[in-house]
Amino acid sequence: MAKGVLLICSLGLVFAFAAADNSSLQDFCVADAGSSVLVNGQACKDPETVQANGFSFSGLHLPGNTSNPVGSKVTPVTVAQLPGLNTLGISMARIDIAPWGINPPHTHPRASEILLVLEGTLEVGFITSNPDNRLISKILQKGDVFVFPQGLIHYQRNTGYGNAVAIAALGSENPGVITIANVVFGSMPDISVDILAKAFKVDKTVVSQIQSKF
Amino acid sequence: MAKGVLLICSLGLVFAFAAADNSSLQDFCVADAGSSVLVNGQACKDPETVQANGFSFSGLHLPGNTSNPVGSKVTPVTVAQLPGLNTLGISMARIDIAPWGINPPHTHPRASEILLVLEGTLEVGFITSNPDNRLISKILQKGDVFVFPQGLIHYQRNTGYGNAVAIAALGSENPGVITIANVVFGSMPDISVDILAKAFKVDKTVVSQIQSKF
Amino acid sequence: MAKGVLLICSLGLVFAFAAADNSSLQDFCVADAGSSVLVNGQACKDPETVQANGFSFSGLHLPGNTSNPVGSKVTPVTVAQLPGLNTLGISMARIDIAPWGINPPHTHPRASEILLVLEGTLEVGFITSNPDNRLISKILQKGDVFVFPQGLIHYQRNTGYGNAVAIAALGSENPGVITIANVVFGSMPDISVDILAKAFKVDKTVVSQIQSKF
Amino acid sequence: MAKGVLLICSLGLVFAFAAADNSSLQDFCVADAGSSVLVNGQACKDPETVQANGFSFSGLHLPGNTSNPVGSKVTPVTVAQLPGLNTLGISMARIDIAPWGINPPHTHPRASEILLVLEGTLEVGFITSNPDNRLISKILQKGDVFVFPQGLIHYQRNTGYGNAVAIAALGSENPGVITIANVVFGSMPDISVDILAKAFKVDKTVVSQIQSKF
Amino acid sequence: MAKGVLLICSLGLVFAFAAADNSSLQDFCVADAGSSVLVNGQACKDPETVQANGFSFSGLHLPGNTSNPVGSKVTPVTVAQLPGLNTLGISMARIDIAPWGINPPHTHPRASEILLVLEGTLEVGFITSNPDNRLISKILQKGDVFVFPQGLIHYQRNTGYGNAVAIAALGSENPGVITIANVVFGSMPDISVDILAKAFKVDKTVVSQIQSKF
Amino acid sequence: MAKGVLLICSLGLVFAFAAADNSSLQDFCVADAGSSVLVNGQACKDPETVQANGFSFSGLHLPGNTSNPVGSKVTPVTVAQLPGLNTLGISMARIDIAPWGINPPHTHPRASEILLVLEGTLEVGFITSNPDNRLISKILQKGDVFVFPQGLIHYQRNTGYGNAVAIAALGSENPGVITIANVVFGSMPDISVDILAKAFKVDKTVVSQIQSKF
Repeated sequence: MAKGVLLICSLGLVFAFAAADNSSLQDFCVADAGSSVLVNGQACKDPETVQANGFSFSGLHLPGNTSNPVGSKVTPVTVAQLPGLNTLGISMARIDIAPWGINPPHTHPRASEILLVLEGTLEVGFITSNPDNRLISKILQKGDVFVFPQGLIHYQRNTGYGNAVAIAALGSENPGVITIANVVFGSMPDISVDILAKAFKVDKTVVSQIQSKF
Repeated sequence: MAKGVLLICSLGLVFAFAAADNSSLQDFCVADAGSSVLVNGQACKDPETVQANGFSFSGLHLPGNTSNPVGSKVTPVTVAQLPGLNTLGISMARIDIAPWGINPPHTHPRASEILLVLEGTLEVGFITSNPDNRLISKILQKGDVFVFPQGLIHYQRNTGYGNAVAIAALGSENPGVITIANVVFGSMPDISVDILAKAFKVDKTVVSQIQSKF
Repeated sequence: MAKGVLLICSLGLVFAFAAADNSSLQDFCVADAGSSVLVNGQACKDPETVQANGFSFSGLHLPGNTSNPVGSKVTPVTVAQLPGLNTLGISMARIDIAPWGINPPHTHPRASEILLVLEGTLEVGFITSNPDNRLISKILQKGDVFVFPQGLIHYQRNTGYGNAVAIAALGSENPGVITIANVVFGSMPDISVDILAKAFKVDKTVVSQIQSKF
Repeated sequence: MAKGVLLICSLGLVFAFAAADNSSLQDFCVADAGSSVLVNGQACKDPETVQANGFSFSGLHLPGNTSNPVGSKVTPVTVAQLPGLNTLGISMARIDIAPWGINPPHTHPRASEILLVLEGTLEVGFITSNPDNRLISKILQKGDVFVFPQGLIHYQRNTGYGNAVAIAALGSENPGVITIANVVFGSMPDISVDILAKAFKVDKTVVSQIQSKF
Repeated sequence: MAKGVLLICSLGLVFAFAAADNSSLQDFCVADAGSSVLVNGQACKDPETVQANGFSFSGLHLPGNTSNPVGSKVTPVTVAQLPGLNTLGISMARIDIAPWGINPPHTHPRASEILLVLEGTLEVGFITSNPDNRLISKILQKGDVFVFPQGLIHYQRNTGYGNAVAIAALGSENPGVITIANVVFGSMPDISVDILAKAFKVDKTVVSQIQSKF
Repeated sequence: MAKGVLLICSLGLVFAFAAADNSSLQDFCVADAGSSVLVNGQACKDPETVQANGFSFSGLHLPGNTSNPVGSKVTPVTVAQLPGLNTLGISMARIDIAPWGINPPHTHPRASEILLVLEGTLEVGFITSNPDNRLISKILQKGDVFVFPQGLIHYQRNTGYGNAVAIAALGSENPGVITIANVVFGSMPDISVDILAKAFKVDKTVVSQIQSKF
């Protein structure tokens, strides 16, 4: 497995939101990144010391670098980038996709997602769970909004001639992202070849070839 | 109380998101606006008949009309506009504010909000609950993100020379909006003058004058 | 802004309940006020050392001092006063209102409230969210119960000849209280005059006058 | 089993609250008792037709009739009595206990409870879960508040010379009440005698005798 | 009260599951048993140091020792035995019951339970809350599944000729178990004799005799 | 795409559980399959008409037929098979895997899962979300328990010489199952070849070949 390539790629694909439903038990609980105590979510800074900067993040107007194999870049604004999101159950991301690019099939284990197209044309789709596995897809134009239900596999593809830009929001401060191909064929360590060969109905040599690219 | 004016104004100010935390119990539950059964949230359409349009909304690229007393317009995308949001706990809105305009102080009773500035310069702020009532505010530029915790009073003001545009998302498919001045001085029927006089420490005549404008 | 006066007043008005919906994950988690670790809610004392006093509070039979500008006093019993409420999602308060007094318009960002009149006559009301802003109000007598939905602005007013006493309970151990007038006109620092002038449709001088009283 | 006696008794003991944590997805959802549709919680009335009476209940100032074997009476105010509580996750009850009376050991399967003594002297207690089964109890006087964690067995006993009155609130609009003795020895039909004999370490004849009294 | 006997017995009866509904805010949060910080649930280990063993438990194929007064033994797999369950809201238990044995009436304050019979024949039952107190019971054979709703009192009894084995799962990582007889008659310290005499409609001497056996 | 084959296969692989966290608002709400009203979860039967059969399911002792391409069979017991699970947030499944078989990589969008090995030897594993994509795996023997966190991709493989049998439980009455390969390469209609080619880093002809097998 080519982990070096994977790193570039997975960073390029990092969707960055999530959707959980614990409720806030005080006005706010700005995440204390320096805390040595790990809890469900994050420990809070002393509210007396919190300033407005704890609730803000800058830079989402900057295009992401789509010079990577999938031609897309996701810039997340989750609790990791914006500590004030802690306990508030919401996050955001900017998605840039080159004309030939895709945001490959992925899921968010802890969030539903709402997406707004700012520029360009995007094909978006999600697939329902077993047994129907129905693909529900649509071509979106500038100003269109679409929703991806929690945990379902979904993707975006630029079907236009120029760059596409979208803003997504999710119902968790830490939604998590599972890029299917990377997780299945690029895990560390690898999933056994024969498992993937049976699951994807291909020869083991095909599995090994795919794994070597991640 | 001038209800005619209120209607125009309150529509102009309708923030349109919310944040609740019930979980989805199936892949999706697209709201059935025609259902005669009213439940917490909304009844669902037959999933077999649902198409991609049930998960989408168009038009958020269009500027809102800010020709109103507060110089702002919120275009909501909640479960009322996008039925596929039902049970998914997330929604979105576009906020347009003229150079001299504000999105007046308001709360969302059922959601936290994350906001991204797309164009212009915005002063944003929220006030903590009793007893501190601390104003936490910041000037945001294009690309800046800010978060407003659930239930706290907050506002935005255009402090630049051109129009400001922002995208907000909230953690509920039906967050609700309570525009403070409209609710307090423009309710239907009015709150008694002496209550507001005592609460706001003004003469009853001042209360009556304010009420007459809503 | 007259902060000295504000302090007295805001203490006088501190409603003290809240409504969140995280679940307890053990029999109890009595709040450890001395803990240096801040989390969503509060860290717990060692359960072995907890005694019955950790689950109790005394003094709610004592009338609150209503000698203040609004003629009312709220005595809270939240997790701050009764550590055993931590993680249990419920709290209580006593409300005393003099014959000429009010409990001014306020919201609880994290709780619905149920109220019982023990003595006297109270007008109570809440206002629905946009766009209707409908006032739903009622005169309550001794023995009457009323409910205020989460996040909605509500008030009580003594409309009788004697003191009124009520007991309120809310669905959070830390519901929070936002007294509207104090938050909007008495925040620290002040909200800009022109924002409030536009929101409340009054001259800036009126705003400044009101702010000077909080 | 003497069901006739049981009915009187169980009505006499009906605690009437509960504590669940679903969130409201609109301003309110007043329960529609006439709806033929049964859902988790209750279906809602058309909000346009709802009046203030839908949010109120009268009569909690009236003493309950404690002329029954346990010398106590609980008057509930749950969603069954106050339809506006639906989806709001809170309820209330009045507890009257004669000088020689008890509110026998019981649990609320869906709520924690906070209790305020209005008159008299009450011994209150709850027992922790296995393996400690620790009794945490306290004598409460007028004005004292105590909290019973969700699902734990608890009781109240009048240890004074006069009637005792308390107000309880719980974190659900339908908390449910399980009066232990009635459920275990007075279920319909009876639990097998040998199960109870083994569980309570008594002869089967003792079990039968107890069952005959419920 | 015979605490020595109680200990053996209560261990023998420890049901071991639970059902809470806080959501996980990261992929996992393996409980750190050595943490000095107590929170709702448990603090987490550093995820970098977590190995597969943190998510596993061994030994549930081993029959429990049913040589005790009730003829049953519950082997729990909750967060106390399997730290990886922390924040995931699920747990499991093995139940062994001798031919003459019972798993005596008990509740789980924080979980519903689903049970599968692996071997033998079991009578299972639960009783609804007041006022109906309806016993819903059934004889289960190998391969049968049954569900006990959260907080309701339930039991199992071996009605066959050989040992019975069942697997139960519950919706909490720490559901808690309240064995009714042990809690009511074997708490530490004892509940007052007169309370139990009134509640169970027996003479105080009978109460004392029962208490002496726990 | 060979849908005929897919149907057999996806049925063979249907994991059948889920994990959501809405709370029950009454003792039980047995699903009414015949209801024409669709809500989040399911409408309830009249509780008066509910019998013990509404809470039970039979047949989980029967081996599943593993004569299919992946050599495994999952027999679900969710709300679809056991109506009494409705609103209770828990479900179960039996997993049979032939000596050469696998339960292919899949996720549950709405539940964590706990698994117990009843017979045989199973390799189990799950992969963490981006960016680590760490495979956490373990060989389980009879009596071993393992937990898979919500939404993460996981699998089981029989690594022994005989059949393997496991019981799984999940924290939802309707967890949903997303079998990765089937959803990604066997959706109806197909995902565009070029999307999958880019995502999996293979030629489009390889994608088409795989799609033709599902």
